[in-house]
Amino acid sequence: MSNSYLPIPLKEKILREKHDQLPQIMRKFNIDCWLIFARETSTTPDSAMNFVVGSDVVAQSAFIFFIKKDEIRKIAIVGNFDAETERNKGIWDEVIAYDLGIEAALLATIQALNPEKIALNYSLDDYSSDGLTHGMFLVLENILSEFQDRFVSAQPIVNVIRSNKSETEIGLIKEACQLTEEINEKISTTLDIGQSETDIQARFHEEIHNRGFGFSWQREQNPAIDAGKDKDFGHVLPQEDNFTVEGQTLHNDFGIKYHGYCSDLQRMWFFGKKTDLPEELKHAMDTVLEAIRRAAKRIRPGIQGYKIDKIAREYIISCGYEEYKHGLGHQVGIMAHDGGCMLGPLWPRYGNGPKQVIEEGQVFTIEPNVKTKNHGMVSMEEMVVVTSTGCEFLVKPRKDFIYIHE
Amino acid sequence: MSNSYLPIPLKEKILREKHDQLPQIMRKFNIDCWLIFARETSTTPDSAMNFVVGSDVVAQSAFIFFIKKDEIRKIAIVGNFDAETERNKGIWDEVIAYDLGIEAALLATIQALNPEKIALNYSLDDYSSDGLTHGMFLVLENILSEFQDRFVSAQPIVNVIRSNKSETEIGLIKEACQLTEEINEKISTTLDIGQSETDIQARFHEEIHNRGFGFSWQREQNPAIDAGKDKDFGHVLPQEDNFTVEGQTLHNDFGIKYHGYCSDLQRMWFFGKKTDLPEELKHAMDTVLEAIRRAAKRIRPGIQGYKIDKIAREYIISCGYEEYKHGLGHQVGIMAHDGGCMLGPLWPRYGNGPKQVIEEGQVFTIEPNVKTKNHGMVSMEEMVVVTSTGCEFLVKPRKDFIYIHE
Repeated sequence: MSNSYLPIPLKEKILREKHDQLPQIMRKFNIDCWLIFARETSTTPDSAMNFVVGSDVVAQSAFIFFIKKDEIRKIAIVGNFDAETERNKGIWDEVIAYDLGIEAALLATIQALNPEKIALNYSLDDYSSDGLTHGMFLVLENILSEFQDRFVSAQPIVNVIRSNKSETEIGLIKEACQLTEEINEKISTTLDIGQSETDIQARFHEEIHNRGFGFSWQREQNPAIDAGKDKDFGHVLPQEDNFTVEGQTLHNDFGIKYHGYCSDLQRMWFFGKKTDLPEELKHAMDTVLEAIRRAAKRIRPGIQGYKIDKIAREYIISCGYEEYKHGLGHQVGIMAHDGGCMLGPLWPRYGNGPKQVIEEGQVFTIEPNVKTKNHGMVSMEEMVVVTSTGCEFLVKPRKDFIYIHE
Repeated sequence: MSNSYLPIPLKEKILREKHDQLPQIMRKFNIDCWLIFARETSTTPDSAMNFVVGSDVVAQSAFIFFIKKDEIRKIAIVGNFDAETERNKGIWDEVIAYDLGIEAALLATIQALNPEKIALNYSLDDYSSDGLTHGMFLVLENILSEFQDRFVSAQPIVNVIRSNKSETEIGLIKEACQLTEEINEKISTTLDIGQSETDIQARFHEEIHNRGFGFSWQREQNPAIDAGKDKDFGHVLPQEDNFTVEGQTLHNDFGIKYHGYCSDLQRMWFFGKKTDLPEELKHAMDTVLEAIRRAAKRIRPGIQGYKIDKIAREYIISCGYEEYKHGLGHQVGIMAHDGGCMLGPLWPRYGNGPKQVIEEGQVFTIEPNVKTKNHGMVSMEEMVVVTSTGCEFLVKPRKDFIYIHE
């Protein structure tokens, strides 16, 4: 049976953990009301709902978290057909079901609460707290026209709810990483020269299917498979006519979804004995591994993400390579790219993410790469969880290529 | 292996079919530029991208379709790591890759094209053409500040691109329906009294897994399983402690995803002989079936959706039942709820959908239900495709309950 979905008892446990954290988080950011407004979330999901709602909705729905003094009040306003699902969860103080339209019930509820701020799920910088669509924002502006000047971004709340993983979540991500390595090990025994990238990917897909796992990202690009010295790593589909070659490398970028949580690891193989490894590849791999070690050594709560990226980036440049054209690492959770604080450079495309501060319970990838002159690219990707004083690897970090024909 | 994903050759075929339709659609609605603006679409998908882009993106990306005189120009502006994927597709006239931020390339491109309108994927009424997030809208407003007054909703384009299915798409949906009925038939042979709803759902899940299908909507609610006279149909989870009973009904609402396209059918079983069926259930089923027949008979291109809903709704009321508290039917495609024109009443929560006009190639459900006084609810759901003169059922419509212990 399928192991890719979060089992209901675990989902309920995580929902309770997140609801328990919420009052403290809302107080910390001085937001008295958080409003999630969504419809047809199978088509257009607001991924923040995974943590505090836990199921899809069909009709326009409002989920309201309101803090006053020491109390939190949690209200769901949903279409009649979604109401029983919400009532059965037991996480709402009140479930209001409507037949025709949400307008009257939503306006009356907000008027009664009269919050100072209304935090909505939009963000210019952070995709993971940007689940409110523009159309739904306009709908909300119409319904709550008298409250428009109280609208603020809910990004601070969503970031913490999502990023700071509970023990249950960390356990699941760790399991996903272990299972990913299990598959890597198993496929390693089947690798040989003259195999096409699409062929190799198909073997990974078969393992994933047989074990009932899901994909951390789009299946066609997962795992990314890059054979030989001429393939540029990145989000490029495996090719039918590109083959593994004696004396050259194979690279994958692979993540599974297990019980709703993701892994994201990169590994490399070399077709030949360790003693045959070209000096250039050895130097490149040593550089990548040392960059990972240096970054991991400095990760701890309170430091901004870009400072970690800088350590790895400058080390790689100091070793004579061009800098990698992406961030050093991103958070991982229910998605491979989980948003929030990131270990990235201060480039416009990463917005505010790299300026955010690392906190305990966050899970990051560390994934530098370098390009050699004659033997292609070298990359490795590990995953760490932030502890109170530093970070820990979620699976044993690799120390080298995996040698085929050793 | 997995059969839930659209195989690449079929995906490429559908992309070509949609790209071919596009100039005509854009001209019809007098829109010279359609701009899709998205990032990290694994987390926050813009579902319209399925039809004209065909893969996920990571960094901020702009997909531009521009019509001038008889020519269409198609430009993708993507982060460097997404560029090769786009180039390999062969559907873009130009792929612009950026390293740091999209701002300069996007502004320069729009300045050069200087379109009269810039259609964006937002809609107050229609969730399926509302894929642009509010945060990304604000980003775009900043980048294209000098063009803000040219922004319009792309809903008319997205609706037609998505709704008016190509032959390839209709073929896939039909197959999904047939496979759904195959599973219904198979599970029918295992049904008996004293079985719990969760138990029955688990058998459906096993079939789906073994055949490598996906789910049309959230797995926990798919199929919905409703046993006995006291269960209110709707999006309610199956219960462990609710059992099938002799002389009572079982209902499911079940949809699979096969090669990327969905089914959505409701069926009902009766535990007993046909001669044991209570008169009340017989009357209710006859009413539902006749409502479906009357609606299907009137579906044709050019008629507004709400008029079809009205036919079924008024017929049901005329038979002495309360009206159903939802729309008569919705479109089906890559999602079970596929947006656009719908067969629904003119209630606020359905927005503009029911006012839209039915067109050839659209696929609809027809799903009225009624509530009996003593024997619970009765429902049935069929799927039809609109032809040039009317509509055709995608699988043979059911004529009755399926009798267990006949």
